Amino acid sequence: MYKLGPSLMCADLGNLESQISELDKAGVDFYHIDIMDGNFVPNFTLGPDFVRTVRKLTDKPLDIHLMVNKPENYIELFADCGADMISIHEEATAHLQSSLTKIKSLGIRAGVAINPATSLDFLKYVYNVTDYVVLMTVNPGFAGQKFIPAMYDKIAELHAFIQRTGMDIEIQVDGNIGAGTIPKCREAGASMYVLGTSAVFNDAGSIQDNVANTRKLFN
Amino acid sequence: MYKLGPSLMCADLGNLESQISELDKAGVDFYHIDIMDGNFVPNFTLGPDFVRTVRKLTDKPLDIHLMVNKPENYIELFADCGADMISIHEEATAHLQSSLTKIKSLGIRAGVAINPATSLDFLKYVYNVTDYVVLMTVNPGFAGQKFIPAMYDKIAELHAFIQRTGMDIEIQVDGNIGAGTIPKCREAGASMYVLGTSAVFNDAGSIQDNVANTRKLFN
Amino acid sequence: MYKLGPSLMCADLGNLESQISELDKAGVDFYHIDIMDGNFVPNFTLGPDFVRTVRKLTDKPLDIHLMVNKPENYIELFADCGADMISIHEEATAHLQSSLTKIKSLGIRAGVAINPATSLDFLKYVYNVTDYVVLMTVNPGFAGQKFIPAMYDKIAELHAFIQRTGMDIEIQVDGNIGAGTIPKCREAGASMYVLGTSAVFNDAGSIQDNVANTRKLFN
Amino acid sequence: MYKLGPSLMCADLGNLESQISELDKAGVDFYHIDIMDGNFVPNFTLGPDFVRTVRKLTDKPLDIHLMVNKPENYIELFADCGADMISIHEEATAHLQSSLTKIKSLGIRAGVAINPATSLDFLKYVYNVTDYVVLMTVNPGFAGQKFIPAMYDKIAELHAFIQRTGMDIEIQVDGNIGAGTIPKCREAGASMYVLGTSAVFNDAGSIQDNVANTRKLFN
Amino acid sequence: MYKLGPSLMCADLGNLESQISELDKAGVDFYHIDIMDGNFVPNFTLGPDFVRTVRKLTDKPLDIHLMVNKPENYIELFADCGADMISIHEEATAHLQSSLTKIKSLGIRAGVAINPATSLDFLKYVYNVTDYVVLMTVNPGFAGQKFIPAMYDKIAELHAFIQRTGMDIEIQVDGNIGAGTIPKCREAGASMYVLGTSAVFNDAGSIQDNVANTRKLFN
Amino acid sequence: MYKLGPSLMCADLGNLESQISELDKAGVDFYHIDIMDGNFVPNFTLGPDFVRTVRKLTDKPLDIHLMVNKPENYIELFADCGADMISIHEEATAHLQSSLTKIKSLGIRAGVAINPATSLDFLKYVYNVTDYVVLMTVNPGFAGQKFIPAMYDKIAELHAFIQRTGMDIEIQVDGNIGAGTIPKCREAGASMYVLGTSAVFNDAGSIQDNVANTRKLFN
Repeated sequence: MYKLGPSLMCADLGNLESQISELDKAGVDFYHIDIMDGNFVPNFTLGPDFVRTVRKLTDKPLDIHLMVNKPENYIELFADCGADMISIHEEATAHLQSSLTKIKSLGIRAGVAINPATSLDFLKYVYNVTDYVVLMTVNPGFAGQKFIPAMYDKIAELHAFIQRTGMDIEIQVDGNIGAGTIPKCREAGASMYVLGTSAVFNDAGSIQDNVANTRKLFN
Repeated sequence: MYKLGPSLMCADLGNLESQISELDKAGVDFYHIDIMDGNFVPNFTLGPDFVRTVRKLTDKPLDIHLMVNKPENYIELFADCGADMISIHEEATAHLQSSLTKIKSLGIRAGVAINPATSLDFLKYVYNVTDYVVLMTVNPGFAGQKFIPAMYDKIAELHAFIQRTGMDIEIQVDGNIGAGTIPKCREAGASMYVLGTSAVFNDAGSIQDNVANTRKLFN
Repeated sequence: MYKLGPSLMCADLGNLESQISELDKAGVDFYHIDIMDGNFVPNFTLGPDFVRTVRKLTDKPLDIHLMVNKPENYIELFADCGADMISIHEEATAHLQSSLTKIKSLGIRAGVAINPATSLDFLKYVYNVTDYVVLMTVNPGFAGQKFIPAMYDKIAELHAFIQRTGMDIEIQVDGNIGAGTIPKCREAGASMYVLGTSAVFNDAGSIQDNVANTRKLFN
Repeated sequence: MYKLGPSLMCADLGNLESQISELDKAGVDFYHIDIMDGNFVPNFTLGPDFVRTVRKLTDKPLDIHLMVNKPENYIELFADCGADMISIHEEATAHLQSSLTKIKSLGIRAGVAINPATSLDFLKYVYNVTDYVVLMTVNPGFAGQKFIPAMYDKIAELHAFIQRTGMDIEIQVDGNIGAGTIPKCREAGASMYVLGTSAVFNDAGSIQDNVANTRKLFN
Repeated sequence: MYKLGPSLMCADLGNLESQISELDKAGVDFYHIDIMDGNFVPNFTLGPDFVRTVRKLTDKPLDIHLMVNKPENYIELFADCGADMISIHEEATAHLQSSLTKIKSLGIRAGVAINPATSLDFLKYVYNVTDYVVLMTVNPGFAGQKFIPAMYDKIAELHAFIQRTGMDIEIQVDGNIGAGTIPKCREAGASMYVLGTSAVFNDAGSIQDNVANTRKLFN
Repeated sequence: MYKLGPSLMCADLGNLESQISELDKAGVDFYHIDIMDGNFVPNFTLGPDFVRTVRKLTDKPLDIHLMVNKPENYIELFADCGADMISIHEEATAHLQSSLTKIKSLGIRAGVAINPATSLDFLKYVYNVTDYVVLMTVNPGFAGQKFIPAMYDKIAELHAFIQRTGMDIEIQVDGNIGAGTIPKCREAGASMYVLGTSAVFNDAGSIQDNVANTRKLFN
């Protein structure tokens, strides 16, 4: 019911194979990989070579989050690396419908990611080519930021809209997702949780313990 | 005399710690890390988190190659990650002198990288804030491309210019550097060699063997 | 009541004069000419010289559809070529009100074109400088794409808004307009139809026959 | 209750010190300073040196209106000059929440400026980091333009929204604010008035007279 | 020996088929088609549909002149339309070597176009992937401009360089080429001539007469 | 013989009229006004309103230094404000010849400004539409930087080139021009000196004294 996806940007990049092995054992549902262009967000992270490496290490779905301008230009690049899901930012393209359609035509699940201030209006025009909406619950670009409280209402607004219209769309939350925020996100209606340092990649316990403890928050 | 620097973009990203451990044992001289913005070059690679990870795994110099537009905006970001050397592209900034000066003011060695078609003219105006010039010997952006033969003459032209003017500037070559190209690069005057799949990260032998075999090309 | 406008991008560009002569005889209501910049959309089409040529060949209104970034910079260029109507994309400018006002100040009818995912919210702030709204019913940039079914609801939503507020604004539909889509567009409230290969420029009949057959769909 | 802020772009730039002295005596509430980048708007105005100069000449709040793309890159620059308020354009950034948060973290009041055609939707997601909204009542970029009548309704719409939700947000109006427009703006709910040539910097009377006469419009 | 190529931007666009028929009979050597993006140059002209139309009307080589930013993104688009030659602007790309290599890999002749102020330095690094250099002899973007006299020396400089190094590269001149300028261009060493309104598309005579008269200038 | 031009960006902006009055009395030869766009350089300064104000206060030549991208778009804007000289950056435009021609066609002297690392190659192609070259002797964008020593050689190189070819072109130096740098600039061949805080706008003496002392450096 609730899907948990560790954000590999926050993993120990020196030992990715063993990290993924542990995460696989912990039963995570997907892997979230952020791609940044230094322009849509002022930072850089990972790229196709990294995705290809992860592809060889696990069979779980790979969820590519394109935090880049004109994402339409990079869809094929990441499709070729083995992406199962690709999300693009509404703020980063004038061609949202076209880009989502392109993703789906490649057999990949299509997501729309939106920054905290972005309106949900677009959804009524693209719902039938959208598999999930990524609500940024922090400002995108850097790890370690605080959850924006106004986002709980936004999750609930989105959830209500989806329920009312009977759409088949998942709500992914991304940013400072952990014990302090998961209960309220769940209550508001989120179904996919991107897990970073708050929940998984910290010294509180082993990766498997951390994932297990996170999962308890949903019981 | 000759410095060898493996390009970590080509390493096994699933086991970076052990890769670096082997490379350290093999006695490489520096690590080359490519950063791409999807705009200056149409690809993405690595970022600050990756650099920070490498920084913890080795004491050797880290050489950051910024294949990004307006590199002046990212110098501090990479300085904070532990860079020892940063190269920026002449084609990517209107403010080359200023950017090099900024790099050096942070105690970091400053390099100018140039694409195959770019003139060497700039060097006579910035030689005193330039520690090394990176001659791209393939077109930048993707691994696995062929060495451009006209670049041997360019290395020689640059070498002659440096000799004639008595500058203290190293020549780094980057792109398809291996047994087939190193002898002529060396003859032309290159002193720093970025090593990727051609020389090190392939199945010909272990990393240590591959580095050792590469080193023999300089004897 | 219903206005039909062939899209000259789809005409036989080798014999434009005779094509326009036939279209004039067929009684089309306006000519639609797409301008692309390779950036707002990744394609190129026609330009001022083409518009000037058409201007000499017919007295019917010329409707220029600017699929370009910063359309405000090109309004005068096309006004000087004899445009009677100019539409600009909402997604392509931060200065929609200003641009529409500029178009109208030149005695030209002003349109706002919007991509499939774009909200209609803007209209309540610019209705008094808007003569028509162009609803893209395919993704812009290339001929031969499929009508997006969600656009029927969007036409109806726009039509209801216009009716409710008593605005004097026409609804133009652009993209895969033909026998298979016109009846539902008409039902939803569209009044101006851009005709391309689906309706006019195909081998089903002569241009005059094709226009006549299209017109029958409105009876 | 009503705050009046002269726009220094319209002052006599040859005698700024005496102009500010007169304005201070006239009891204005803040100073509005426009910054333009030639790109978000096709004009240039003032910069940090000017702001620093004004900072030394008055203790009143300085309100910096950034009519520039990617305003997030310039917040610190103007914070360092002594800004008390900074407004940024919603159309100019993909990172509205982040930028407002940054402004407020520097102890500066944060405003969102919006062009005439821009939707108010964003406000429900950023209201808790927004101190004021700047409704452009003319098209931004040049002095001497006419008030857009549709903006009265927009002020009222914004005012109603703020009242209904109990937010603590001020409404600033900017553009052709004077005797002909203030009464209706006031009625619609605006509380901060940017005063340019229409109200203050003209030959109708002395600066002090002009401010006094403007103030009477609020009684 | 001397190749003449009419610029179809200057043709009668209402009767392209008959224009090309006449030009073919007149024995022109190639057709020059300008593509503009409104950004590299502030104008628009023609696009792929036009090129495809011309392709069906003649067997002569089609020479596509891309006056667009980042031309590397559009090479395949025009290759698919039937281009035999493609020239790109040195000022418009950071990846000249790569772009030329891409053109040639598609079996198309590759040209480098340069604006009047651009240095010839690049040529010594890309000569072996360059089939022709287009020297703009007017400023690009609009028809009807005057020949820049300093360009005669530039043709001669380029010619001398090619002769000295024994390269196999043609020199194309583009801009105000006619009776008043051809003799000096020929003397300076140009071999390909783009013909517009000055030479061919004017009322001095029929197209065939005009081409014939132009050809006499080379005897 | 030597022309001195105070940079008004460094003046007391609170009392511009009296500053200019003093400078006029001191016999300065021209006024230098920097325009910045926050993009070509990461700062903002002054604009057309400021230039118009200065125009009313003095009859001396106004020298506008456009440190902005695509300066061709702003030439008319500043011509209308009363500019006598306009310089544009070689790095900021692909259309240098065209832009200089446009400046001169408006009866304004045309200058090319170049950043420290920029080659002088362009000059042989545009010398006949260039009245002066602005050699940036610091990195552009902010006041208070240090003179780059390599620039003395660049002045000399430019001077030698001008002498050798008999061009009628002045050399302007801009950046940290004062007692410590003027003698060597003069020796190298500079003829126009932009004076900022180093020479004029400091507490060493009155403006008139400072100008007089600066002038002595040329005797």
